[in-house]
Amino acid sequence: MQLKNIRIVLVEPSHPGNIGGAARAMKTMGLSSLYVVSPRRFPDPQADWRAAGALDVLDQARVVDTLDQALEGVQWMVGTSTRNRKIPWPITDAKGVAEQAMQLPDETQSAILFGREDNGLTNDELSRCHLHLQIPAAPEYSSLNLAMAVQVVCYEIYQRFVNAVEDEFADTMHGWDRRIAKVHEIDALLAHFEEVLTGTAFLSADNPGQTLTRLRRMFARIRPDETEVQILRGVLKHLAGAQPLGSVSNDK
Amino acid sequence: MQLKNIRIVLVEPSHPGNIGGAARAMKTMGLSSLYVVSPRRFPDPQADWRAAGALDVLDQARVVDTLDQALEGVQWMVGTSTRNRKIPWPITDAKGVAEQAMQLPDETQSAILFGREDNGLTNDELSRCHLHLQIPAAPEYSSLNLAMAVQVVCYEIYQRFVNAVEDEFADTMHGWDRRIAKVHEIDALLAHFEEVLTGTAFLSADNPGQTLTRLRRMFARIRPDETEVQILRGVLKHLAGAQPLGSVSNDK
Repeated sequence: MQLKNIRIVLVEPSHPGNIGGAARAMKTMGLSSLYVVSPRRFPDPQADWRAAGALDVLDQARVVDTLDQALEGVQWMVGTSTRNRKIPWPITDAKGVAEQAMQLPDETQSAILFGREDNGLTNDELSRCHLHLQIPAAPEYSSLNLAMAVQVVCYEIYQRFVNAVEDEFADTMHGWDRRIAKVHEIDALLAHFEEVLTGTAFLSADNPGQTLTRLRRMFARIRPDETEVQILRGVLKHLAGAQPLGSVSNDK
Repeated sequence: MQLKNIRIVLVEPSHPGNIGGAARAMKTMGLSSLYVVSPRRFPDPQADWRAAGALDVLDQARVVDTLDQALEGVQWMVGTSTRNRKIPWPITDAKGVAEQAMQLPDETQSAILFGREDNGLTNDELSRCHLHLQIPAAPEYSSLNLAMAVQVVCYEIYQRFVNAVEDEFADTMHGWDRRIAKVHEIDALLAHFEEVLTGTAFLSADNPGQTLTRLRRMFARIRPDETEVQILRGVLKHLAGAQPLGSVSNDK
């Protein structure tokens, strides 16, 4: 993993000061790619002031309307979470995220999502993430300020990065033969699943239950590469063609 | 080390927002003892706003005029530093501070000092510290915001605390037979040294050089207990009595 391939995504932040604070936090830890989804006030003098010597990160920040736009090209994504979810998800702490990030191939496009100051990320947003992140904090008051949370996560990534530079073979996916699938390719795969499973009445369109969420979680753990996604899409296409099950074949 | 015995000392902060931010950072990591030395503006609505759910920490913060007052009863102190000093000092990173703090006896009163937003701590302030702390950061821009630095250090302390709770025997000074000397006792010892060494013309009063600073550094490493300080004071008293060197004896 290279630091330049890790983007920090702030989802609908309310306070411009936090955007500036996040930019400064990132730059002090060697990160530079900031995405801001639908901010309430930005640009803003308060953001500039809090960014201090990281105005360049702030100026280059991409402001987008939807989370989807912020995820363009992303292959691995992590969502910060404070709540426990109905369906348990792979979860780790800031150090764990740093360790996992550093095990990905250098060119992997990664995103770490931070939610709204008051409400965090929605369940939908969290269910798109490969991994959830909780910063260990005091049970009496565990609510870190948004920019502070960015600082802690970037700090852990940088510490790990500094230690990992000479330890390239810690990379468990080093030399992987295929590009890891992009988030949008997985989304398309899941949409395909939904279409086929609803069409075949495996799922009720009115009450699909948790099946798709569980499929999503499974793919988050597997982290498929592009070829694996193509194979699964091929299988679905054959199923949707309503051929007898016995004739389903791998179209690669 | 107990979290309640670690005080965070902000030395002459300019921006009230940073005081509030530091209070929140502390509370999320289980710390509650905040000292503010001669702040430019405090109390202030901006401090309250940034403190969010940590108003109690802010309300209980002790505002004092001098660093000395903030160090009342302190036995171990750490100073954040970004510069390299003329005389190298024991130095570690945020994780190292957390590890060393956790090896101290539970009742040890500790202080972690954070300097001015623009200028940090002075050389004099740093030379009183047992240990210097540098947060590893990107060489291109290593200047963390004050409250962010507090967050990272408190974060490392809390991580270590959570892990150490069950590992009490990692405490290398566990069962120490004497109370560790207070900072003011060491100060008095050094003042005594200065008096004696100047009086005996070992030091030139006009140009004392670095001798006292080096003595200070040595005591910072040794971390003497109260009895050891009493012994040294006794030795100095005898020397100052201008007895022939051969008759110096330990008065304990």
